[in-house]
Amino acid sequence: MICPVILSGGSGTRLWPLSRQAAPKQFQRLLSGRTMIQETAARAITPLAPGEDFAPPIVVCNESHRFVVAEQMRELGITGSRIVLEPVGRNSGPAILAAALLVAEASPATVLWMMAADAAIGDEAALRRAVGVAVAAARAGHVVTFGMSPTAPETGYGYIEQGEPIAGIEGAFRVTRFVEKPDRATAESYLASGRFLWNAGMFVFTAATLIGEFERHAPDVLASVREAVARSTADADFIRLGAAAFGACRNISLDYAVAEKSSRNVVVPASLGWSDVGSWAALWELGTKDAAGNVTAGRSLAIDARGCYVRGEGTLAAVVGLEDVVLVATPDAVLALPRARAQDVKAVLDAIKTLGLDSSAGLL
Amino acid sequence: MICPVILSGGSGTRLWPLSRQAAPKQFQRLLSGRTMIQETAARAITPLAPGEDFAPPIVVCNESHRFVVAEQMRELGITGSRIVLEPVGRNSGPAILAAALLVAEASPATVLWMMAADAAIGDEAALRRAVGVAVAAARAGHVVTFGMSPTAPETGYGYIEQGEPIAGIEGAFRVTRFVEKPDRATAESYLASGRFLWNAGMFVFTAATLIGEFERHAPDVLASVREAVARSTADADFIRLGAAAFGACRNISLDYAVAEKSSRNVVVPASLGWSDVGSWAALWELGTKDAAGNVTAGRSLAIDARGCYVRGEGTLAAVVGLEDVVLVATPDAVLALPRARAQDVKAVLDAIKTLGLDSSAGLL
Repeated sequence: MICPVILSGGSGTRLWPLSRQAAPKQFQRLLSGRTMIQETAARAITPLAPGEDFAPPIVVCNESHRFVVAEQMRELGITGSRIVLEPVGRNSGPAILAAALLVAEASPATVLWMMAADAAIGDEAALRRAVGVAVAAARAGHVVTFGMSPTAPETGYGYIEQGEPIAGIEGAFRVTRFVEKPDRATAESYLASGRFLWNAGMFVFTAATLIGEFERHAPDVLASVREAVARSTADADFIRLGAAAFGACRNISLDYAVAEKSSRNVVVPASLGWSDVGSWAALWELGTKDAAGNVTAGRSLAIDARGCYVRGEGTLAAVVGLEDVVLVATPDAVLALPRARAQDVKAVLDAIKTLGLDSSAGLL
Repeated sequence: MICPVILSGGSGTRLWPLSRQAAPKQFQRLLSGRTMIQETAARAITPLAPGEDFAPPIVVCNESHRFVVAEQMRELGITGSRIVLEPVGRNSGPAILAAALLVAEASPATVLWMMAADAAIGDEAALRRAVGVAVAAARAGHVVTFGMSPTAPETGYGYIEQGEPIAGIEGAFRVTRFVEKPDRATAESYLASGRFLWNAGMFVFTAATLIGEFERHAPDVLASVREAVARSTADADFIRLGAAAFGACRNISLDYAVAEKSSRNVVVPASLGWSDVGSWAALWELGTKDAAGNVTAGRSLAIDARGCYVRGEGTLAAVVGLEDVVLVATPDAVLALPRARAQDVKAVLDAIKTLGLDSSAGLL
């Protein structure tokens, strides 16, 4: 039995105006008729191998998203999912640890497959092969991450330096080191070296291994989260973590709390067609292009345009004669900017706050 | 007494998505808190000179716009306006002729000041001086047009070649000829010559003079419109023209039916800051620019942009990092295109029709 743990903590400002605080990226139908969290959950339904079933996923999410998450699972036909509610966001470390502690109550040897709710994966078959390797390594006591073969000198991702093969587990390698987001020159040298992989933020370990690693490397986090789980209350499928204890916990990523310090790290290199879908430019990359390189989604038109991403949700978005521009339109907010500046969405959100333009409910 | 006649026949596709068939340009608050037709009507309220009053305007409009027009006049505090309803649009010739015939029933010597409902005029004082000259010329039996000093070799306007001064009416000149929209080279030679003026489509004449000119140059139009007026029905302030007779009339502009053929033509040259507001680029020209040359209207943001026109009506429109782009956003349709291609709005409307995208009521 493998238990998927879906971390649905993202606030998703980078895909504004489609993504909002109340409806972040993971709840949007960005790439298909399914939302990102549904695409994610659907990857862990069919048994990995005969006898190697997936448990219903544990979803860790913000309290305010509980009904959306439940509805998303229901639409997929998933029952028995436990939805763990964070009173406040404390990053991936405390989130996955809470899930691990809950699972360990019944079965500490259970393998957890932790994944973000909002990533895209192009090659599902490759994913299943990689997870199979990771599960074997996890059962051998390792903290397993997945290393994506880099295709560009990205400065927005963390990197993993791949070491020697692990004896007896084909496809698993030691981790020489984790590296935080590098500068451009460093990223280029990583790409050229062939030894570095992107850290996709997807992990596999047993509940017991993870708890042991927190005990070693972040005992204060373990204490807080253990207290939050002990004081949690259950309500239908919802598990509400103790607010005071969880709120008192450090805000820390799993990478930083454990992975970068652990001696049990293993990486499974894989080419999954993975993307964190971190910008409208990324969605353009992932999308199906017309002859002029435009990607259109929703109710949209690209006329005599080149390399544009045009998306109309609940409204018609039309572009004429523009090149390499993103236009995303919703009924109450519209954004246009060059594709190369897709990261500058933040400037708009800042301006909206500064100027007090968010009078309409939920504009941000 | 001078009777303003406001022709409100435009369908205004060039300012889509703000302007729609159901709510064309003249009913939009494009340049101020007043709609274009209100700005227009407001120019003919204050008496031109002591004893030289304006009658309440006659508005000629499409049947379907009658309540909008009535409400627009009411908001301005104008009472007693007659609203002449065209069962179908037949261009400016039949429209102004219908008004002239209605006025002539009581007083054929009344001076009519014909104007489009959707033009912008920057210099109201200059307008009043020019109208004063035109009224004097009209009372002397002339068909008076206004010639705008051209500021660019526009190919979208008709031109008027200015002739000799009219003796006894300072500021009025004979018309050597009217010219339809010229090509670029011709327009440039006109601009260089200093003898050519833009035809702003604004006329002054007595009802009797106009009727006489139609009798001479377009007797079939006169017969049809006379019949349509004879068969008209009155309903509150609305005068509904006889549908069969009006429908049988030729579609013809006043310029083509009469002005280009008349021997009574006079032009009053003037610099009025006039614009037909025929595109989003024109609205950018007319708008107040920020330090980077952006014009923002409604709920809108232009961040690190240059030379953009950004308008959000009922929605927030945000542009980041674009140059010389128009972004116009409404809750159900959004358009982005280069300012230099503002005339290409039509391509979008054609595509919407071809693809059947106008499922939402009133998208066109």
